[in-house]
Amino acid sequence: MIRLETADGDFATRFDALVDARRETAVDVACDVATIIRAVRDDGDAALHAFTQKLDRHDLNDTGWRLDAAACAAAFAGLEPELRAALELAAARIRTYHEKQRPEDTAFTDAAGVRLGARWRAVDAAGIYVPGGRAAYPSTLLMNAIPARVAGVERLVVVTPTPDGVVNPLVLAAAHLAQADEVWRVGGAQAIAALAYGTERIARVDVVTGPGNAWVAEAKRQVYGVVGIDMVAGPSEIVVVADGANDPDWIAADLLSQAEHDTTTQSILFTDDGEFATRVADAVMAQLETLPTAAVARVAWEDNGAIVVVPTLMDAMPLVDRLAPEHVELACDDPQALFDRLRHAGSAFLGRHTPEAIGDYVAGPNHVLPTGRRARFASGLGVTDFMKRTSFLQLDESALSELGPATIALAEAEGLPAHARSVALRIRINH
Amino acid sequence: MIRLETADGDFATRFDALVDARRETAVDVACDVATIIRAVRDDGDAALHAFTQKLDRHDLNDTGWRLDAAACAAAFAGLEPELRAALELAAARIRTYHEKQRPEDTAFTDAAGVRLGARWRAVDAAGIYVPGGRAAYPSTLLMNAIPARVAGVERLVVVTPTPDGVVNPLVLAAAHLAQADEVWRVGGAQAIAALAYGTERIARVDVVTGPGNAWVAEAKRQVYGVVGIDMVAGPSEIVVVADGANDPDWIAADLLSQAEHDTTTQSILFTDDGEFATRVADAVMAQLETLPTAAVARVAWEDNGAIVVVPTLMDAMPLVDRLAPEHVELACDDPQALFDRLRHAGSAFLGRHTPEAIGDYVAGPNHVLPTGRRARFASGLGVTDFMKRTSFLQLDESALSELGPATIALAEAEGLPAHARSVALRIRINH
Repeated sequence: MIRLETADGDFATRFDALVDARRETAVDVACDVATIIRAVRDDGDAALHAFTQKLDRHDLNDTGWRLDAAACAAAFAGLEPELRAALELAAARIRTYHEKQRPEDTAFTDAAGVRLGARWRAVDAAGIYVPGGRAAYPSTLLMNAIPARVAGVERLVVVTPTPDGVVNPLVLAAAHLAQADEVWRVGGAQAIAALAYGTERIARVDVVTGPGNAWVAEAKRQVYGVVGIDMVAGPSEIVVVADGANDPDWIAADLLSQAEHDTTTQSILFTDDGEFATRVADAVMAQLETLPTAAVARVAWEDNGAIVVVPTLMDAMPLVDRLAPEHVELACDDPQALFDRLRHAGSAFLGRHTPEAIGDYVAGPNHVLPTGRRARFASGLGVTDFMKRTSFLQLDESALSELGPATIALAEAEGLPAHARSVALRIRINH
Repeated sequence: MIRLETADGDFATRFDALVDARRETAVDVACDVATIIRAVRDDGDAALHAFTQKLDRHDLNDTGWRLDAAACAAAFAGLEPELRAALELAAARIRTYHEKQRPEDTAFTDAAGVRLGARWRAVDAAGIYVPGGRAAYPSTLLMNAIPARVAGVERLVVVTPTPDGVVNPLVLAAAHLAQADEVWRVGGAQAIAALAYGTERIARVDVVTGPGNAWVAEAKRQVYGVVGIDMVAGPSEIVVVADGANDPDWIAADLLSQAEHDTTTQSILFTDDGEFATRVADAVMAQLETLPTAAVARVAWEDNGAIVVVPTLMDAMPLVDRLAPEHVELACDDPQALFDRLRHAGSAFLGRHTPEAIGDYVAGPNHVLPTGRRARFASGLGVTDFMKRTSFLQLDESALSELGPATIALAEAEGLPAHARSVALRIRINH
């Protein structure tokens, strides 16, 4: 953990270093991934079978290729009632929030008599990748699948590895709740290849989303353009902007809630109170003593954590914009004033009673968010990631006569005479 | 050109082949491009200078690095009045259409007392690539730059190569009209690298759009994630759905307007009238005799063109969906009925008086559209490509008490105890 004060002489240099610090590990798996994708394109299910045997250590012909609807329903029914209710609350609130993202079609006729507009439609099929093992989060399945369902996607396919043949009942329960149409027990780059190109058993989809390891991320990058994908994700991060009136324990817990994900995650506190900064730092150390995930969280905090003391919280806003963090908490009495000034963040959590964790599960907004300063240009996952827009135009002879001459002039200037002719013939201009 | 009839015994196989035909040339430039990007990251302007000297054959220190606002204004003033008016009409109509794409912010408070919503902001800076030489289209500059301006992008940067030091006045005029803030005389992968990473002279941007050759496309793919990019584009295509009541010459001109772009483009006619099909094919051959771009258009038509005879135009719709074309014309009396049934197309042109060319220039909708069957999942370029969404949440103590227990249950189930603690501390649950 580093501590900076804007008043320090070397602040600019040290803050630049914080912004530019690369937490993304550049594992070069491009060639391995290309080989796997090629094998799945060439050999289909046989390749999926072989990679699963080798990498996940089970035989799909013995364990079964699919987890059927009955298995998912049984997993859901078998959850503790409290957990089942929590998942149901999460699903309902995520659905309600995303329903407000459904785009409206537009259509209008302008003064020239041109009818024009745009129409939205869902993609036919979407594939959701759900990691196996430690990072197998049912919440992530909901956050990916529900926007696709709200978009109106007709075929929703889940792929998830079951290492050593072990099935995660929480993931199955979430697949049931999200009404996934198919759940396949495949993972890694081979699963992404199957979704993008199709195999004998798995029909190809149009959009692939969901988190994964370096192989999965690289496979998504390589099939981008064959299918649509969500943004490539890097390590997670949180910025907490807090004044001295906060409980240091609350803020310390928020910083640790990011740190416990992974040793590459980053937690940064901005405060206008140097003494409060010290109390939060002490609270982090104290909470690590009892935190079951301390082994991970301590490394993340020590390696990537930071506390920045600023003259006023408003002074922090341009600095937060430089970081363009995935999550930002604004823990003060007038968070809206800070939020109005902020430009770049994936998701904002306003006020003292809005810990980031509430947004990970049940609040409603998506928790799949741009990381690694990508909030400068990218948005969280949403309904339109599973839709596409078709623009349309309709002219009658009069409208074409009005717009035709300009079109002919531009087409000629660009050296495209057939373009000009297709207009000239219709409005009887000799051309 | 191939001619198919749905009644043919081998129709399914031959149509599959048409759908799967790969017109995208897989030039393997990934390594060359990676080397260029690395050089620009390491050496900045010195690398730009060297690549421009070698590839564009002029010395930036002699010709100047930038084309300033005065040069762009002079180019615009120097246009023939008819052309200047045409560009102005195009710019105004493109602006009006795209203004309707500006997304609305949302904010609401739900029954649990949670305030939540989403806010849109423009990216800070956008870079537009404009090819030099034969495909230097001022219309493309407008189609990329105006949505960025409508989004509210504060800094709009154009990069364009000037091979042999020769400037294209039409491109400069369009840059003036689009109010580009900077125009740099660099092109190729080196220009994309400069936009993504910045050099001493050129500050980095957040989003890079615009067409280019294989090097430019690969460079955009390699910097994807460092900046946002528009969809990777392949060869252009048109599908014309027309009944026998159309003038065969009009339809032939439409097919050729696509074919004249490039030998890899594709033009396909669907008709319910076999005799009309023959008359269109004859009209294409006749028009090629006098078309200045016949050398290109003839190859495209012969290599990639197709005519498909269907029982009714409605029967063509599922086949068009398989192709998911960039452009589709529906030339009949009731085009809306066909359009209602269609799912996948970048842009649709309805009725007998709406040639595709009208959409390339002055109608208003964007002409940067998904190609190569990507209309299954991708949309044309639009205002939100230059914006991003920040979701937000605000809970008070009561709302957190309502949603907190479910959050704690899910966080515990996912093995994330600091997440649970950050909530439990605030609602005074012993945890």
